[in-house]
Amino acid sequence: MYTWLLSRFSISATGAKRSVIRELLKLTQQSGIISFAGGLPSPETFPTQQIADLAREVILKEGKWALQYGPTEGFPALKDTLVEMLSQDGIQTTPRNILITNASQQGLDLVSRVFLNRRNRVIVGRPSYVGALGAFKNSGATFKGVDVDEEGMVVEQVEQALDAMRIHGDLPKFIYVVPDFQNPAGVTMSLERRKKLLQLAREYKVLIVEDTPYRALRYVGKSIPSFYELDQDQGYVISLHTFSKTLFPGLRLGWMLASPELIDKFVMTKQAMDLCTPSLTQAIALAYCKKGLMDDHIRENVVLYSEKREVMLNALSEFMPEHPDIHWTQPEGGLFLWIYLPETIDAEDLFHDALDEKVAYVIGSCFFVDGGGHHNMRVNFSYPSTDEIVEGVRRLAKVIEKRL
Amino acid sequence: MYTWLLSRFSISATGAKRSVIRELLKLTQQSGIISFAGGLPSPETFPTQQIADLAREVILKEGKWALQYGPTEGFPALKDTLVEMLSQDGIQTTPRNILITNASQQGLDLVSRVFLNRRNRVIVGRPSYVGALGAFKNSGATFKGVDVDEEGMVVEQVEQALDAMRIHGDLPKFIYVVPDFQNPAGVTMSLERRKKLLQLAREYKVLIVEDTPYRALRYVGKSIPSFYELDQDQGYVISLHTFSKTLFPGLRLGWMLASPELIDKFVMTKQAMDLCTPSLTQAIALAYCKKGLMDDHIRENVVLYSEKREVMLNALSEFMPEHPDIHWTQPEGGLFLWIYLPETIDAEDLFHDALDEKVAYVIGSCFFVDGGGHHNMRVNFSYPSTDEIVEGVRRLAKVIEKRL
Repeated sequence: MYTWLLSRFSISATGAKRSVIRELLKLTQQSGIISFAGGLPSPETFPTQQIADLAREVILKEGKWALQYGPTEGFPALKDTLVEMLSQDGIQTTPRNILITNASQQGLDLVSRVFLNRRNRVIVGRPSYVGALGAFKNSGATFKGVDVDEEGMVVEQVEQALDAMRIHGDLPKFIYVVPDFQNPAGVTMSLERRKKLLQLAREYKVLIVEDTPYRALRYVGKSIPSFYELDQDQGYVISLHTFSKTLFPGLRLGWMLASPELIDKFVMTKQAMDLCTPSLTQAIALAYCKKGLMDDHIRENVVLYSEKREVMLNALSEFMPEHPDIHWTQPEGGLFLWIYLPETIDAEDLFHDALDEKVAYVIGSCFFVDGGGHHNMRVNFSYPSTDEIVEGVRRLAKVIEKRL
Repeated sequence: MYTWLLSRFSISATGAKRSVIRELLKLTQQSGIISFAGGLPSPETFPTQQIADLAREVILKEGKWALQYGPTEGFPALKDTLVEMLSQDGIQTTPRNILITNASQQGLDLVSRVFLNRRNRVIVGRPSYVGALGAFKNSGATFKGVDVDEEGMVVEQVEQALDAMRIHGDLPKFIYVVPDFQNPAGVTMSLERRKKLLQLAREYKVLIVEDTPYRALRYVGKSIPSFYELDQDQGYVISLHTFSKTLFPGLRLGWMLASPELIDKFVMTKQAMDLCTPSLTQAIALAYCKKGLMDDHIRENVVLYSEKREVMLNALSEFMPEHPDIHWTQPEGGLFLWIYLPETIDAEDLFHDALDEKVAYVIGSCFFVDGGGHHNMRVNFSYPSTDEIVEGVRRLAKVIEKRL
């Protein structure tokens, strides 16, 4: 790098680091490795033939708009369709409450830019989705981490944190939460905690940013109302959604729900970011939804992933060494589960042993803003085949056993 | 808006305003209006059948990656193809110098975020592309405007500005320039000025951000080397490119060229913005380029737009009132030309007369960071039909005549 250039970067670019996960993932791409490290949907789930036919059809029929620039807000017809789909999930909303985004990562970035100045505070879980942390860090956010247990974010800690922050005149801009089948821990926030957290948001006048990528992928148990539903249009919740895990990620298509006033701010900011989300990807998703294919497709995904989850839980029970400090979460949906190791085993040290045994995972510490997670691993069960899951868990158990 | 919420926005979101152009464009969508206000490519140019067939083909054949997440940098095969295509334009580069973006607006946003802190300075033309100004404003940039004449940015003014800024220890982070067929003025920077500007960049150690959306659409005259070519890998130039004006905008697909060290910074920042550009749009563009369809397609666009430009220039000569202060630029390419009115006529006042006469344009002041442009209008000739161009210019001339 030219020396003169070093002083030209913005504060956030100067501090930017390559994602640890991204670098780890490179190591896991060697042949023969069974990787539980990624977070990819299985390509088996992609409705390739349907999408191929629909893409051709919409380009021929709707090319005039599907190949042209579109409104920053997203196409009205797609928003109308989302309004209908959301009503099945208990959400009564309007097109004015929707902004179409380049998947939910752009939603996170928009939230970051519309709310965060440097050093502003955000409450996040310990652990939290690393892509959200990255988006908030881009704006110079600082974090207050609160524990996540089997019932999700520990709301008592949120209250204590808010209390302390209020005393210092330093309330957070928002609380970031993945209520359903959290990435990385796989846990779901209970209804009671959701209600309590929303109550806190109202009391302290702090927004909740709810990220819902896995919500439609529930394999056991009953759906719990989303924060957006619970808020009943009181304006305390911003809800991020995506087609990435239900349809396919190569669309990079998602949407945000918020009050029309907030959507307006997001639209203004997005306009300077990319003018609009691709018309082409919107047209394809719209055609897919309009044909009524989505519900069946999600059901098929649920069947497939449900089996993979079962296989992984069974393999863990079968192969993992019996030890009072070795246990794992029982996700009711989503793509991940979270393994706890004894304090004598550092998941980062273990990673290299695991690679030698041709199995990979993500080290827990990646998901912590303030230390922690050194004895945790995130494992993904959506991408590997059931055979790979069994064999991979066998290898993982062997590596752990050796370290005990 | 809830009062408590007002204090929660970031500085940039608090200051964000709806784009004036966007609001004007809404007015121009009434039926019967001939609009020279937009900047859209003509849908006649969209290779609809080819794209429809190719989309189906790549989804069926390459669905496994075309529907999946992809690398943040963009797909290697697309970057290889771009390297080849760029060599036809005199640019010798490598895939490591390329980042695939959600069209060039995202390139502008990336530049904004990687270089600009609040109150950092940027040198821009008077006038300048309004989307670039918006992207830089999002990071809190402040601007130094320099005049643009028939030969592009007036480089002597850039030198004076740099001199003054250096004295105040306040050098700009970069100089933003659209060298070919500038939006809005339609002018092209001469080779001499390009060389001089690059020399200044090196002398003062300031980057040049070159935006090239129209570069391939030249109708008369000979191509002038781009800044990226002239810099010969010395690291002073970041070059933004897009498929929007050559293939179709609904892809939202473009790329940036820069030194590998800078690309690395852009990749880290983009990762937290949207993880990656859609695999699907990349796969379609790649297939189109690989089939060797791009060159012919650009040639067809050039024939069509060249005729429209001719028709507009002829109509202006025929209908515009003869007046020493009424004249217009003669763009050698691109989508726009720029009309100068006498000081007695304010283009914003005139806009409403024009709407009454069912013709629309963009008022010049939108493109100025520091006042100015009140007696200018930007007119687009790519979108309207040739008949509409003639009739629209006739109406416009009538409105102006009335005001004289």
